[in-house]
Amino acid sequence: MLKNIPPLLGPQLLSTLRAMGHGDEIVIADANFPAEFLGPLTMRADGISATDMLEAVLTVMPLDEFVDEAAIGMAVVGNPDAREPIYDAFQDIITRHEPKMSFTTIERFAFYDRARKAAAVIQTGESRLYANIILKKGIIRPSAA
Amino acid sequence: MLKNIPPLLGPQLLSTLRAMGHGDEIVIADANFPAEFLGPLTMRADGISATDMLEAVLTVMPLDEFVDEAAIGMAVVGNPDAREPIYDAFQDIITRHEPKMSFTTIERFAFYDRARKAAAVIQTGESRLYANIILKKGIIRPSAA
Amino acid sequence: MLKNIPPLLGPQLLSTLRAMGHGDEIVIADANFPAEFLGPLTMRADGISATDMLEAVLTVMPLDEFVDEAAIGMAVVGNPDAREPIYDAFQDIITRHEPKMSFTTIERFAFYDRARKAAAVIQTGESRLYANIILKKGIIRPSAA
Amino acid sequence: MLKNIPPLLGPQLLSTLRAMGHGDEIVIADANFPAEFLGPLTMRADGISATDMLEAVLTVMPLDEFVDEAAIGMAVVGNPDAREPIYDAFQDIITRHEPKMSFTTIERFAFYDRARKAAAVIQTGESRLYANIILKKGIIRPSAA
Amino acid sequence: MLKNIPPLLGPQLLSTLRAMGHGDEIVIADANFPAEFLGPLTMRADGISATDMLEAVLTVMPLDEFVDEAAIGMAVVGNPDAREPIYDAFQDIITRHEPKMSFTTIERFAFYDRARKAAAVIQTGESRLYANIILKKGIIRPSAA
Amino acid sequence: MLKNIPPLLGPQLLSTLRAMGHGDEIVIADANFPAEFLGPLTMRADGISATDMLEAVLTVMPLDEFVDEAAIGMAVVGNPDAREPIYDAFQDIITRHEPKMSFTTIERFAFYDRARKAAAVIQTGESRLYANIILKKGIIRPSAA
Amino acid sequence: MLKNIPPLLGPQLLSTLRAMGHGDEIVIADANFPAEFLGPLTMRADGISATDMLEAVLTVMPLDEFVDEAAIGMAVVGNPDAREPIYDAFQDIITRHEPKMSFTTIERFAFYDRARKAAAVIQTGESRLYANIILKKGIIRPSAA
Amino acid sequence: MLKNIPPLLGPQLLSTLRAMGHGDEIVIADANFPAEFLGPLTMRADGISATDMLEAVLTVMPLDEFVDEAAIGMAVVGNPDAREPIYDAFQDIITRHEPKMSFTTIERFAFYDRARKAAAVIQTGESRLYANIILKKGIIRPSAA
Amino acid sequence: MLKNIPPLLGPQLLSTLRAMGHGDEIVIADANFPAEFLGPLTMRADGISATDMLEAVLTVMPLDEFVDEAAIGMAVVGNPDAREPIYDAFQDIITRHEPKMSFTTIERFAFYDRARKAAAVIQTGESRLYANIILKKGIIRPSAA
Amino acid sequence: MLKNIPPLLGPQLLSTLRAMGHGDEIVIADANFPAEFLGPLTMRADGISATDMLEAVLTVMPLDEFVDEAAIGMAVVGNPDAREPIYDAFQDIITRHEPKMSFTTIERFAFYDRARKAAAVIQTGESRLYANIILKKGIIRPSAA
Repeated sequence: MLKNIPPLLGPQLLSTLRAMGHGDEIVIADANFPAEFLGPLTMRADGISATDMLEAVLTVMPLDEFVDEAAIGMAVVGNPDAREPIYDAFQDIITRHEPKMSFTTIERFAFYDRARKAAAVIQTGESRLYANIILKKGIIRPSAA
Repeated sequence: MLKNIPPLLGPQLLSTLRAMGHGDEIVIADANFPAEFLGPLTMRADGISATDMLEAVLTVMPLDEFVDEAAIGMAVVGNPDAREPIYDAFQDIITRHEPKMSFTTIERFAFYDRARKAAAVIQTGESRLYANIILKKGIIRPSAA
Repeated sequence: MLKNIPPLLGPQLLSTLRAMGHGDEIVIADANFPAEFLGPLTMRADGISATDMLEAVLTVMPLDEFVDEAAIGMAVVGNPDAREPIYDAFQDIITRHEPKMSFTTIERFAFYDRARKAAAVIQTGESRLYANIILKKGIIRPSAA
Repeated sequence: MLKNIPPLLGPQLLSTLRAMGHGDEIVIADANFPAEFLGPLTMRADGISATDMLEAVLTVMPLDEFVDEAAIGMAVVGNPDAREPIYDAFQDIITRHEPKMSFTTIERFAFYDRARKAAAVIQTGESRLYANIILKKGIIRPSAA
Repeated sequence: MLKNIPPLLGPQLLSTLRAMGHGDEIVIADANFPAEFLGPLTMRADGISATDMLEAVLTVMPLDEFVDEAAIGMAVVGNPDAREPIYDAFQDIITRHEPKMSFTTIERFAFYDRARKAAAVIQTGESRLYANIILKKGIIRPSAA
Repeated sequence: MLKNIPPLLGPQLLSTLRAMGHGDEIVIADANFPAEFLGPLTMRADGISATDMLEAVLTVMPLDEFVDEAAIGMAVVGNPDAREPIYDAFQDIITRHEPKMSFTTIERFAFYDRARKAAAVIQTGESRLYANIILKKGIIRPSAA
Repeated sequence: MLKNIPPLLGPQLLSTLRAMGHGDEIVIADANFPAEFLGPLTMRADGISATDMLEAVLTVMPLDEFVDEAAIGMAVVGNPDAREPIYDAFQDIITRHEPKMSFTTIERFAFYDRARKAAAVIQTGESRLYANIILKKGIIRPSAA
Repeated sequence: MLKNIPPLLGPQLLSTLRAMGHGDEIVIADANFPAEFLGPLTMRADGISATDMLEAVLTVMPLDEFVDEAAIGMAVVGNPDAREPIYDAFQDIITRHEPKMSFTTIERFAFYDRARKAAAVIQTGESRLYANIILKKGIIRPSAA
Repeated sequence: MLKNIPPLLGPQLLSTLRAMGHGDEIVIADANFPAEFLGPLTMRADGISATDMLEAVLTVMPLDEFVDEAAIGMAVVGNPDAREPIYDAFQDIITRHEPKMSFTTIERFAFYDRARKAAAVIQTGESRLYANIILKKGIIRPSAA
Repeated sequence: MLKNIPPLLGPQLLSTLRAMGHGDEIVIADANFPAEFLGPLTMRADGISATDMLEAVLTVMPLDEFVDEAAIGMAVVGNPDAREPIYDAFQDIITRHEPKMSFTTIERFAFYDRARKAAAVIQTGESRLYANIILKKGIIRPSAA
């Protein structure tokens, strides 16, 4: 463990978040997500909820203000307008760290295609359905360095 | 060996089944199947029948209820309507674990193409012909976690 | 996830437990334990308590009845007779799975030396001090296969 | 599969037996044997009995006539004179392939030490206890080539 | 060496032939064939003739009866109807092992393209020109297992 | 870059510091230090001073309070009592982060031997002589997690 | 360190610059640049400014006189004519080493695409925005060898 | 060193030349050639002239008589008819080893594209410009074996 | 194949012989020799006799004149004075290439120990017993370069 | 090539010299030296003389002034007082770069043992006997950085 860094962020995850640059994306996935054979590096977080992981990641990583959608979830299959409870939980955490940012969703297979290009996928033990989220990294400005 | 886990599932196979997510596929192949040069990871199960392996896999892995066909075999070459005895043996095992699921077949080279995208191929020592089956993994719902 | 297997056991951990044989040892370590540079394979379980991990491991892995001590913790530095609360928590879980087995402790550096020969170390996010335990795997008898 | 070669011998096992030379040793181990972390390459044969594997190996591999003991098992812990039923099963198979050779045993930890220097360990799914055997390869004379 | 297995088949070649399945192809190439940079695994057999190698391979590997051409050579450059002496030597060996099979030829660069998809290329020391042959593996039926 | 983490700590260094446990050591070395062939992983920090690096590391990593010496430098060759200016610079930074800790020194070759067992060496571009320091990681107590 | 070689050029960077040939490109990137997942080898230079790095690289590496643009930066997003202060800093350094060469810019995503084909990316700790530059290597003529 | 083999041909180069077959190509490149990031294996020959290397290679490797152009250089950029002195030096060496073969040239980027498919590139220390040559390997006929 | 180099010497063997220096040793072993698990790199030469291989090796590699014994065989087990026919065959070939050199023998296990330190072992298909020989490489003097 | 860096120093050699620190050693060896199987990384410089290589290395690398012997050659076997011409050639080059340093020699096998601990061995094509030299790297002082 290190001082002032969320303990949920292990060595490899911390390294990945630090290595990502402007516009790179990372996925927080639920326990059923087909992560390991998708392509990107998969980091296991069995037993951890997707919301706890989102909280830890946003504590250190800024979201991208250059685009409209920097936190993207997976829409319900066959019912794209459905509002899953996990969506609100995600939005609450995002709002706390990035007040102006909205959580949006895309269709299941579009989500997979986008996740295939991510820097990494964090597979949590989250058992709630549709608890997947893509996060696009922002920049840190000189004054904030 | 571990408690309450079918002994046929060795370390690598258990790991693969655990790593697979919703929609990922695994192939149980007979002894003549061209597995090793196909692309996916091949796990050997020389001396084991395809039916014993299917029984062991379905004991721990759910099939995908989001699609119509989650257990797909290889049709007889030149006679797609032929009903091989192994098909019934596969259907019996599937029915026992997933009562509503049907075993269907596709043409030989279509089977190869689909197998190429599988997470892995388990090459058994099964000597009966056409004893190949693709299994599509389902999800485990919160209540079942 | 798989049916009837504790979700805390991810692909690599499940594979390791399955690969271990009679007398092989695995370490469940707390968040401060110097695991990564010790020698054996380290598996991360950041955010998970040592007791939850012990519960999950003993659900599938038998302890060794051929030896007197199959569950060994780390004694308090400078006070080997001290009884840390975590010891009782460990003993309770062990008793539930292996009624006749006792939890014992050894000195810190003796613990490190023994851990160096383990099959693997699971580094949990456990923040309680002295929450480290070595588990020696037992056998599964023919009748239990 | 190949013509006239026992189907139990998969690609890697066949390769290993072929690569071994005069005096090299291979271990056939039961399901509880601590093989994977012992040192030598481990080949899995989950679901296969130790006797079926012994039969397959001796079909292609000669035993060493330069030494007195070329087929060595593990003695019962705490009772070195005990005669386990598996010993007779081993002796029968050996006698069929190498009429003059005897099956002998050594103590458990001496067995481990010797196995550590073997070319490989075949971990079967054998659930009978003490079903472990070390085989020392012999030569093939010019007339037999 | 092993009992009843042609000594020309070394560990890696034996392993490859055993790993190949129905329809997989292997190439026996002469000493001038551009094997090493073609793509597939190359196994060296310097000093061995292509005909001795063909004899050894067909002793253990069946040819594919599902296709019309399972043993394909390289036609003479600029003279596709020319009949090289090596062709007859190949046909004799094939006929001995697979009485109904014919040796046919394809054009040089078509041969290279097909060889690129082979499981492996065995580069012999054969100095006769056009001594290259692609072999397509057949199946072993239950009765023959 | 990440929020609230010193920018000098790149992906691999952050990962290493996070992976280190109680008692593990890391070396900050000057530009002349023989780091790359010493044994441990070497991380380059060309152009960075040893003092800036020490400041960055101690911002996130606690020193070990279980031992008397947790920050050890290299004594001047042939003059072990000499007090190099860099020593005071090191002590000032240490005091700011760990008020009770002292900087001590050991002889050059003893320093090399101890560095050989470190988790890693950070090779800075520091051109001042004797600007090498070994840091021993401490623990983070439950209340501080 | 070596005599007469800028200390900022560490082992791997020096090796890369030496290995590059006529027309090969290298990127000096700022701290927010998405370097690590872009494709080319990334070399870290945390804590170093882009201008110091440019100075060091041009001390040993000639720019390409066969093309019009051998030093290319990234244009401001949404304002391609904007003139960032860093551009002048870059031009000054270039002019000192290569008097006839001009610094030009291309659009952000065109920059990424070109960077993907570079020999390597040096990720500096530069916090000024738009401090990215692609350098195309020139030749050294016989008289200058 | 070996008897009767040009000392310029080191272990890896000798191995590559021996492994090449009919029609495979190797490139001898000058010191400015962009070899290392082109694709094929690069072998360094710093300090060696292109002509000495050509002499050594042609001592052991035959050129391809099945094609019209088996020794191809790079034409002068912007002046394809220019005749560089190095061309004559190349032709002299070729004529000595392969009396009927001519040296021809192709355009710079066509040369790069062809070099990308070569078995390897030998990067010499040649400082003369345009001292690059692609060599296509021929066959050795039975009588010459 | 290459001009004027024995065809039996394939790419890897040629590379190894070229890489060896003064005093390095290589072993030519018969088909029963336990080569693959001995330690050094093993090169297969299935189907080739030990004498043909010795002839090919000595054509390019000088023996060491700085020692008394540069060509050492394995003595008959239990009868160190026995003179196997293969010994004379070895001596004849040696005498042809190195007129002053004698073939000597050492005991079986001493042979194994020395072979363990060799640069490589060439495993031939030689079926004659005791057809093993260690060769110690000599130097090439300036006049002979 | 790079500006102001001796062209004989290729990418890997430059990287190695840069990575070496105070007291690390590198060996320049002649063509007969047993370098490749000695242990350290070997870099080939076939066709280059040992004296040209020494000249290039000392142009960038300082020798160690903390020890009496920083440039050590190999004494003539059986005649340790013999003065080979190459010794004077070495001394001349050393004197030019490091006026106060002397060239000394040690016995052949002592030389091998010391070379085994070197950072690397540069194997030149030098055909003069006893043209081997170990160089111990010095430091660059702050004023010289």
